[in-house]
Amino acid sequence: MIPELKAQSKATWIWYPGDFEVWMANKMQNRRTERGTFFPPFWRMDNHFVLIDFHKEFNVPAEEQVQLFVEGQYNVKIDGKMVSGYPKQITMPAGKHKLSLKVFCQDRVPAIFVKGKTVVSDSSWLVTYEDKEWIDETGKASDQSGTTWLSAGSWNFDSPATPPSKFALATEPKNPVKTEKGAGSLLVDFGRETFGFVKLQGLQGKGKVHIYYGESREEALATETCETLDLLEIDEPGKKDTTISLTKAFRFVNVRYEAGVSLDGVSMLYEYLPVTDRGSFTCSDPEINKIYDVSKYTFHLNTREFFIDGIKRDRWIWSGDAYQSFLMNYYLLFDSPSVTRTLLALRGKDPVTSHINTIMDYTFYWFLGINDYYLYTGDKKFIQQFYPRMQSLMDYCLARRNAQGFMEGLAGDWVFIDWADGLSKQGAVSFEQLLLARSLETMATCAGIVNDKEGQKKYANLASDLRQKLFSTYWSESKEALVHSLVGGKQTENVTRYANMFGIFFNYFTETQKQSVKQSVLLNDKIQKITTPYMRFYELEALCAMGEQEHVLKEMKDYWGGMLKLGATSFWEEYNPAKKGVEHYAMYGRPFGKSLCHAWGASPLYLLGKYYLGVKPLSPGYHTYSVEPVLGGLKWMEGSVPSPAGDLNVYCSEKEIRISGIAGAGILKIRSKSKPTGAGLQVKSLGNKTYEIHIGAGQNIALRYSAIK
Amino acid sequence: MIPELKAQSKATWIWYPGDFEVWMANKMQNRRTERGTFFPPFWRMDNHFVLIDFHKEFNVPAEEQVQLFVEGQYNVKIDGKMVSGYPKQITMPAGKHKLSLKVFCQDRVPAIFVKGKTVVSDSSWLVTYEDKEWIDETGKASDQSGTTWLSAGSWNFDSPATPPSKFALATEPKNPVKTEKGAGSLLVDFGRETFGFVKLQGLQGKGKVHIYYGESREEALATETCETLDLLEIDEPGKKDTTISLTKAFRFVNVRYEAGVSLDGVSMLYEYLPVTDRGSFTCSDPEINKIYDVSKYTFHLNTREFFIDGIKRDRWIWSGDAYQSFLMNYYLLFDSPSVTRTLLALRGKDPVTSHINTIMDYTFYWFLGINDYYLYTGDKKFIQQFYPRMQSLMDYCLARRNAQGFMEGLAGDWVFIDWADGLSKQGAVSFEQLLLARSLETMATCAGIVNDKEGQKKYANLASDLRQKLFSTYWSESKEALVHSLVGGKQTENVTRYANMFGIFFNYFTETQKQSVKQSVLLNDKIQKITTPYMRFYELEALCAMGEQEHVLKEMKDYWGGMLKLGATSFWEEYNPAKKGVEHYAMYGRPFGKSLCHAWGASPLYLLGKYYLGVKPLSPGYHTYSVEPVLGGLKWMEGSVPSPAGDLNVYCSEKEIRISGIAGAGILKIRSKSKPTGAGLQVKSLGNKTYEIHIGAGQNIALRYSAIK
Repeated sequence: MIPELKAQSKATWIWYPGDFEVWMANKMQNRRTERGTFFPPFWRMDNHFVLIDFHKEFNVPAEEQVQLFVEGQYNVKIDGKMVSGYPKQITMPAGKHKLSLKVFCQDRVPAIFVKGKTVVSDSSWLVTYEDKEWIDETGKASDQSGTTWLSAGSWNFDSPATPPSKFALATEPKNPVKTEKGAGSLLVDFGRETFGFVKLQGLQGKGKVHIYYGESREEALATETCETLDLLEIDEPGKKDTTISLTKAFRFVNVRYEAGVSLDGVSMLYEYLPVTDRGSFTCSDPEINKIYDVSKYTFHLNTREFFIDGIKRDRWIWSGDAYQSFLMNYYLLFDSPSVTRTLLALRGKDPVTSHINTIMDYTFYWFLGINDYYLYTGDKKFIQQFYPRMQSLMDYCLARRNAQGFMEGLAGDWVFIDWADGLSKQGAVSFEQLLLARSLETMATCAGIVNDKEGQKKYANLASDLRQKLFSTYWSESKEALVHSLVGGKQTENVTRYANMFGIFFNYFTETQKQSVKQSVLLNDKIQKITTPYMRFYELEALCAMGEQEHVLKEMKDYWGGMLKLGATSFWEEYNPAKKGVEHYAMYGRPFGKSLCHAWGASPLYLLGKYYLGVKPLSPGYHTYSVEPVLGGLKWMEGSVPSPAGDLNVYCSEKEIRISGIAGAGILKIRSKSKPTGAGLQVKSLGNKTYEIHIGAGQNIALRYSAIK
Repeated sequence: MIPELKAQSKATWIWYPGDFEVWMANKMQNRRTERGTFFPPFWRMDNHFVLIDFHKEFNVPAEEQVQLFVEGQYNVKIDGKMVSGYPKQITMPAGKHKLSLKVFCQDRVPAIFVKGKTVVSDSSWLVTYEDKEWIDETGKASDQSGTTWLSAGSWNFDSPATPPSKFALATEPKNPVKTEKGAGSLLVDFGRETFGFVKLQGLQGKGKVHIYYGESREEALATETCETLDLLEIDEPGKKDTTISLTKAFRFVNVRYEAGVSLDGVSMLYEYLPVTDRGSFTCSDPEINKIYDVSKYTFHLNTREFFIDGIKRDRWIWSGDAYQSFLMNYYLLFDSPSVTRTLLALRGKDPVTSHINTIMDYTFYWFLGINDYYLYTGDKKFIQQFYPRMQSLMDYCLARRNAQGFMEGLAGDWVFIDWADGLSKQGAVSFEQLLLARSLETMATCAGIVNDKEGQKKYANLASDLRQKLFSTYWSESKEALVHSLVGGKQTENVTRYANMFGIFFNYFTETQKQSVKQSVLLNDKIQKITTPYMRFYELEALCAMGEQEHVLKEMKDYWGGMLKLGATSFWEEYNPAKKGVEHYAMYGRPFGKSLCHAWGASPLYLLGKYYLGVKPLSPGYHTYSVEPVLGGLKWMEGSVPSPAGDLNVYCSEKEIRISGIAGAGILKIRSKSKPTGAGLQVKSLGNKTYEIHIGAGQNIALRYSAIK
């Protein structure tokens, strides 16, 4: 059921786990430019191990020829005995034999592709960066008992001709929907937000060619303030197509060329990660369907080498942004390699010298991402491989607690939380403690998986202590909420939505607290509003978790529908309905600083799958799961939710529910005016017009009921 | 007085300190081959930081043009404001301004060369691998208070055209002294051990050309067992010179070519690090002069990108071997960059996951190397830059102590000590504790230099506790020696030379203990003999430190003279006079496994300078120093010892001593039958026919005395 654990019989390129991801992330994250100037990240970029030992023991049924493909300088050993030179093919004798390759590669990640009949390279090989295989004066080898071996890293590099270093996303030619020609200028519109390599067709002559990119028409025309641009100096006697080497995000492209230059047209190579949509959602409300589709497109544009924040500006892997992409992914693609690639790129290497992306909350989201990854996929292997990197990151956090045991921003820590006017980051912010508590719970779970009993106890105790202290310190009876922060160890007067909404879907509140928080915070207009889709994600999730789907549907239509009404073809980094015209495009003090295609804008994918179709795992990898469809005002809805156990299809109208089950055991829970009926169903009443129906492995369910609106 | 602290007015390439060394060491240490097969190290190779921020504040007298040369993708900021694109030249305005460059480079070390009239790149720039320079929603920049800046690394890359990545040693063509032609074969003799690129002259035809290298004639002829070889398959219609791309060590080269191939001759490009001999030694004994010269040549051959162990086989940076090279260096080259390059390559990066070269003793030699480096050079800057790496390595050691507080080999630790038959590595070996104690003393010194008062106290306490425990646990009154080890917490019966001889020149013994150890261990033939020049180094040092120069001179003539009598043109990895003929060449179970040119073979350079000319620093950087010439049976000797304060020349016969002083304050100490006399000298009698004469800064001393033979 878990793809990563499947026996692999085919050969694939392998490497030291995490190293391809670190190397690729370096490449990817150093592609940001600001008006043609290089704009790299401000956190530490790690590097791969340059010298790796790979080995595996095989039971070879009959002598076989084995081909070797290697990225780097290498040697080969069979049963510890060197094969001379740099062999491209070796003979593996029949019987039990150990094949080892040792590879040095400075500029790329050391990697191997081994292909025989039974002897193949895959993630069952073991690797290390220090084999400690010395020999003594007499030629006797060391026992290597002090060597740490990990399972090899791999992905989908299944051909010897495409090693990891040659990785490139797929491309597809696209033409603009509209071209406006001017004197020495061409303004093209690709009809919607897109990403890729711009191609100047039939370029000829001598002179400068300026290219100004715009996510909006206004931006492409704003040659002095648009965020990205290119400048070519050409000298082409004959007509020639020129493809710009660095990808860009745009809908509009404004090409301006000097008098000596001519140009036939502009097209592009759309660049994308080839992935399959397994999740889907349609319903009776066309606006919601449109929101879903634009979310999907927004999400695809930001699902690349890694889950990135937005395609125009940063193009970086931000942990807080990636965390939301992980969740959306579980309801659309269920592409686990994209999750693990991103987690590994974010984590980088030891030693830990700062928070992930330098942001305290982003470190915690990394832990939360692992928590969810395990819940949704059931993949223990990833946790087994990377538990030490989880430990060292948590050690870093624990060493930075203040005297009260709370996390408080120290020099060099960015306490982000959200983009929100005047939001205080001073002192120990309740939101951060909540995230730390959940991170510690994650550590306890993972310690259990790797059988670190001592760690499990330690982390569980730390988590429960912190949860207790969180409430004894931050909960205000008078405000019926967790206050925003402690400054000088004392509660501030400030109440914000953050800790309170997370407390709800973390299930940290008592039922009474939850209901108070709903009124005193979530539905309270006096509490500072959230303007980023980033935090809207959690706000709406909290409301959904409390059964407020109808309210959330309206909010969704207002908020995402609001962007659509302004002509959005992908969802934005931030949206404030109070703004007008080009004001919408400004951010960071720059007129077009805002990203109009931001992964965190795609959260309806998650909300509609998890809280309307109502599907979620109850135990790791969907061995058990629940379906709680809630129409929230819709007449009907239909869709699929992917899982390692298959795709679960749900149809739900006010009278009928149909579910095609998956390999795990499910529980359907619905509210109905009358007892639901259906052939062969065992319906259990839970009282208060709520019913529970068991869904057996692979079982299809169809029932009639009467929805409570 | 300290070269590293000199104000630099010329531009030079700079990088993140330690990163060039790590990158270059990867290159160098992956050049080992065994009979044509790649043979990489078995310990972790680190990697450089790929993204570096460089900056410096300048007081620019008048607006100036500044040229920029960069290894990698970069941006430039003046006072935090980006300069557009990838400028190759910028205008620095007059006044106080901060120039920053941020560079990403994956395959090489990010490096910059900045050259204006006053604005130049040098080691006074500051660098970091995480600048934490984020901006908030409004465009406001972070305060960067959490950023750690280090002084930039640099060496001698003073031309924009030769960036660090293009580093190559110097070469010089050399011809063989003898060529023997056979049918399809050519055996050439270069007259002595050498290193470089073999050049096949006038190669023509089609077929295979085998090249077998030999440090001995026997090895070059042993085509089945020689350690290094090359195989070319050529197809050259016309005559062509072909240079082999990988350097080799050899004296003899045996070329065998197929019938279709012809060859005019063999020559070579000798490859070397251009350094100047500042130290010298000549004396009345021609054999000692020969030993000194061959030591010098041996040392030069092994002084390359780094101080390596030997040129034929490993070509690796081994900490124990390098430590001795450091000491020899202080008496021959005084080339500090070679010391710091080697220290940095050995140390690599955090986290520490094993001992240096995986060997426990080699970790300690690294600390000892720093101790001596500071004493000889007085360079505090190096310690300030790398104190954190010293701390993390010491933390690693301290965490590996056993219940008794002693270092004992754990899984994966190689307890080396020496190549010696049957030498026990079990339990807690006294030798390792001694080295740890000295390492802790080094840490205390360095903590003082960086003003880490708490660390200074901690390390000093740990050191004195350990020294006390060392004697209370390992000292045997009956054996009058430190025993070799504790097994199960109890003294073993075994006494070896190692801890006892180090105890002497570490000055860890009482005077009584010292005298007992001299008789019961050093001069006791029943104690297992030392057969490697490696440990002979320390054995002879201990004897010299006890005034046994005459005895040591004989030993030197026997041991090093013994190798010369066997025709050695460089000194060996190991020498056992009991062996005969080709037996001398065997080691590690291979007939030509032994290196015939090993850095540790060159120790007479150190012994003659420190214990015969008798020159050593008393305080860091030779601010004060002592000269205690001891003829040890020689009629006369003459030589120089380099120091940061100038080269100190010493002439000493049985009747006369002449010293040309250096910038520091020296003390000449001699034994004389009568009170020494000389113009303007203040001679202080210390009793027991010992006299002390002060040498003022820059003062030349000449005196008559009467040596006690």
